[in-house]
Amino acid sequence: MQEDGSIVLAQIGVVRSPLSEKSDNVPFQSFNSEVEGTIEVDEEYEQGLDGIEGFSHLSIIYYLHRNRKSKLRTVPLLEKEERGIFGTRSPSRPNHLGVSTVRLLSRKGRVLRVKGVDMFDGTPVLDIKPYVPKVDLVQGVENKWLVDKLDKIDGMDKKQRESIQKHLREE
Amino acid sequence: MQEDGSIVLAQIGVVRSPLSEKSDNVPFQSFNSEVEGTIEVDEEYEQGLDGIEGFSHLSIIYYLHRNRKSKLRTVPLLEKEERGIFGTRSPSRPNHLGVSTVRLLSRKGRVLRVKGVDMFDGTPVLDIKPYVPKVDLVQGVENKWLVDKLDKIDGMDKKQRESIQKHLREE
Repeated sequence: MQEDGSIVLAQIGVVRSPLSEKSDNVPFQSFNSEVEGTIEVDEEYEQGLDGIEGFSHLSIIYYLHRNRKSKLRTVPLLEKEERGIFGTRSPSRPNHLGVSTVRLLSRKGRVLRVKGVDMFDGTPVLDIKPYVPKVDLVQGVENKWLVDKLDKIDGMDKKQRESIQKHLREE
Repeated sequence: MQEDGSIVLAQIGVVRSPLSEKSDNVPFQSFNSEVEGTIEVDEEYEQGLDGIEGFSHLSIIYYLHRNRKSKLRTVPLLEKEERGIFGTRSPSRPNHLGVSTVRLLSRKGRVLRVKGVDMFDGTPVLDIKPYVPKVDLVQGVENKWLVDKLDKIDGMDKKQRESIQKHLREE
């Protein structure tokens, strides 16, 4: 932490993914992604992966490096009215931090093969945590609008999905 | 992002919590915390909270400012052998990023009253995201050892819990 209150973090690795362009139909979220990729941890952090094979899912915290916008309000997916950015998953947020849960397929040295990727190729990785249902799975959650919306996306045809992708690209 | 690859983030707010000393029996994780506190978002980010009342739970991403150690291996809670830090939830991790899911009780302007706090008073907040079961709740998770361990903590008596708190304080 710096004197001016800013916080300096180091990249611990990088995401390698087939998603390299905004036109690549980037999944909306990792939960609906079947995309496979790798997390390549830098050599100096390799020891930190010891025993990680015991987990089926990992939470990846990363830096949304392709997004340079920082908004306080945005029109979320499938909505018409603006909302505050902290009530959305929009990447155009202050600090550009992303969190995705991926399935760990295998580990080879400092390279983790994972499924459920929704990050662009080259995304800087800041932390890896085991996904633990008892910690991360919260019961009794109520969301007035977002649950319905995500169900709606599941039921969409190709054209509708493409129009959403367009929205995401422009954000 | 800086030329040397480091990433500079701004504090968007602060956690106010009754937990101010390591002797305060800090909960192991937010899932077993009944502690109430507030998230005070800085004035310049207040607009980002518009509509956040529609969510019952929020994921808070924060900086573990009280921990100055950065280890690659650590002996996790209730374990005897060291593991890589990325297979644990230990705060002594590179980048010191923490994620907790809390229940939103109320909002008054830029102050969110929340329950399930496991952060120290004064913790710098970096991001707030809505907790969305469809996104964050992953099915079919297998954890070879951590699930058993957390069940074990639930069944512990006072003395056993105190010994764990001691372990956490020393980490």
